[in-house]
Amino acid sequence: MSESTLFCYVHPKIVPLNKASIPITDLALQRGYGLFDFLRVLEGVPLFLDKHLDRFFYSANELHMTPVESREEIRALIYELIKRNQASAAGIRLFLTGGDSPNGYLLGVPRLIILQQPLPELPKELITPGWTLVTYSYQRQLSHVKSIDYLMAVWLQPWLKEQGANEILYVDNGFIRENPRSNFFIVSADGKIVTPKDGVLHGVTRSNVLTIADRLGIEVEERDISLDELEFVSEAFISSSTKRVIPVRQIDSIQIGNGDPDYSVSRSIFEEFAVLEQEYIKSHQ
Amino acid sequence: MSESTLFCYVHPKIVPLNKASIPITDLALQRGYGLFDFLRVLEGVPLFLDKHLDRFFYSANELHMTPVESREEIRALIYELIKRNQASAAGIRLFLTGGDSPNGYLLGVPRLIILQQPLPELPKELITPGWTLVTYSYQRQLSHVKSIDYLMAVWLQPWLKEQGANEILYVDNGFIRENPRSNFFIVSADGKIVTPKDGVLHGVTRSNVLTIADRLGIEVEERDISLDELEFVSEAFISSSTKRVIPVRQIDSIQIGNGDPDYSVSRSIFEEFAVLEQEYIKSHQ
Repeated sequence: MSESTLFCYVHPKIVPLNKASIPITDLALQRGYGLFDFLRVLEGVPLFLDKHLDRFFYSANELHMTPVESREEIRALIYELIKRNQASAAGIRLFLTGGDSPNGYLLGVPRLIILQQPLPELPKELITPGWTLVTYSYQRQLSHVKSIDYLMAVWLQPWLKEQGANEILYVDNGFIRENPRSNFFIVSADGKIVTPKDGVLHGVTRSNVLTIADRLGIEVEERDISLDELEFVSEAFISSSTKRVIPVRQIDSIQIGNGDPDYSVSRSIFEEFAVLEQEYIKSHQ
Repeated sequence: MSESTLFCYVHPKIVPLNKASIPITDLALQRGYGLFDFLRVLEGVPLFLDKHLDRFFYSANELHMTPVESREEIRALIYELIKRNQASAAGIRLFLTGGDSPNGYLLGVPRLIILQQPLPELPKELITPGWTLVTYSYQRQLSHVKSIDYLMAVWLQPWLKEQGANEILYVDNGFIRENPRSNFFIVSADGKIVTPKDGVLHGVTRSNVLTIADRLGIEVEERDISLDELEFVSEAFISSSTKRVIPVRQIDSIQIGNGDPDYSVSRSIFEEFAVLEQEYIKSHQ
C-alpha cells in the first residue's frame, strides 16, 4: 500500500487518490457541511464496521442527508478498496457531504467519499509515558454527530504546541466533555470507570471500552465529570479508533493518580481491547 | 453572464466553473477548515473591495493561514473574473481553504478559490413587508472570523421552514448576537441605532450602516442587546452584502415597534445605502 497507487471512492466511482476531487460547489467547501467517520483496518478486516455504519447513518439522518449508496453498497465499497489497495493495516475515512448546492446554502444530493490511507501503529514510546492534556473551554456544536467540523481542533494546534502538551481536553462550564478526536474516561477512587454522556460524540471505541469494562466486571458510570473531581481520580485515559486506549498522566497542572501512567485499570482495558479486536477479526475473516 | 460559461479561480488558474474542483485531501472537506468572504458587484464594480480584502486577510491571519496570492493579485483576479464573466451585477465568493493536509489534520498550503455567480436583486415584495425572525440559542465559534462554518445555519433550514419565519436570530444566554448571514440592529425608543459588538462577525455592510448613521447624525451604540429589550424598541433591521438593509417586523411572538415595517430610520438608512454605493461606483469606475 503506497500513497501513489491508492484508490478511493468519490461518488459514483472508484478513482486513484491523486485524481480524486469534488466540485467547488459542494457544500463541504461552501458551508463546511458534511459528516465524517473513521475506522481502522487490521489484518484486512474493517474493525467494528457495523457500529461505524450505524453511526454513519445516524449522523446522516441527523444532518438531514440520505446517502445515495445503500448500507450494503457502502460495505461492499469498503471491502473493494481494501482489496484494491492491498491494505492489511490502514485507516478508512468516510465522508458524506452536503453535495452540490444550487445556491451555495441549501442541501444538494449528498456525495459519498471513501478514502483509505496507511495507518502506522502509534509507537510505544508515545503511549507508555502517558499523555498530558490541556483544557480549553469549548462545547462542540451538534456534538452527538460526527460532522466535519474540526475548526476549533485545527485552529488550536499552534496553541497546543505552545503548551507543550499531547492533546486538548474540551471543558464546558467546569465540566469535562471530550478531546477533539477522542473520548475521555476517569477511574474513580472507588474503581468505577466514568465517562461523560452528554455533549460528546459517542465514539465506537468508547462503546467498546464500555463493553470491555462490563466483561472485566468493572462498574461504569456515564455522567458529567467536573474539573474539581480530577484531583481525586486514580486513573484517566482517552480512547479513539486510531489510539485505542492511551493513559493520561497530567491535565493542566493536575497530576492524575500517583503520576505513574502504568495504571492497572487502563492497562487491563488496553490489553482486553486487543482481545476484542482479535475476536472480531476471527469472526469476520 | 450565464451559469454554463462562468469562469472562476481555483489556485493556480482561472477555469470554467463546471471543471472547477479541489482535491479530496483539502482541509475544507477533511476538517471543515477554511474562510469565506462575499461581496457584491454592481455596474461592474466590486463594492467596498478594500474593506472585504481587509477582512479576508484578517480572517486568514486569525486562522493561521497566509494566502499564496498577494492582495494585489487577488484584486486583479476579481477584476479579471468580472471582465471574463461580463457580469455587471453579481456576487463574488472568496474562499481560502486549509489546503492539502499531509495527515488530514495539520494545515497545508492555503488554497484560494474565487467564484462568481449571478446575484439577482431581492424582489421588493420580499423586503417591504419586513421579515419575521425566530430566535435560536447559539453562539458561533470564532465569531470574529468569517469561516466556512455554517453547519448550524444549514442544519436549521428545515426547522426555519417549519417555523414559517424568514430568518433565524442567534441568541446566547439571553443576548442577541447575529443572524446566520447578517448583522442585527435595533432602533431604541430614544432613536439610537444599537447593534451587538461582541460575539458577532463585524460585517462590511454593518460597518457601512454605522458610517451612514454617522452621516445622518444618528447616535450609534455598539453593545449587547438583551431579548427583554425588544419590547421597547421602535425599529429593528438586519444588514448583509446581499440584502443591504431589511426591516424586521416580528421576532418570535414579539411585534417590533408599531408593527408597520415602513420604519423611518431603517428606511433612511436603506435609502442612504444606495447613495453610498453610487458614490463608491463613481469613484471606482
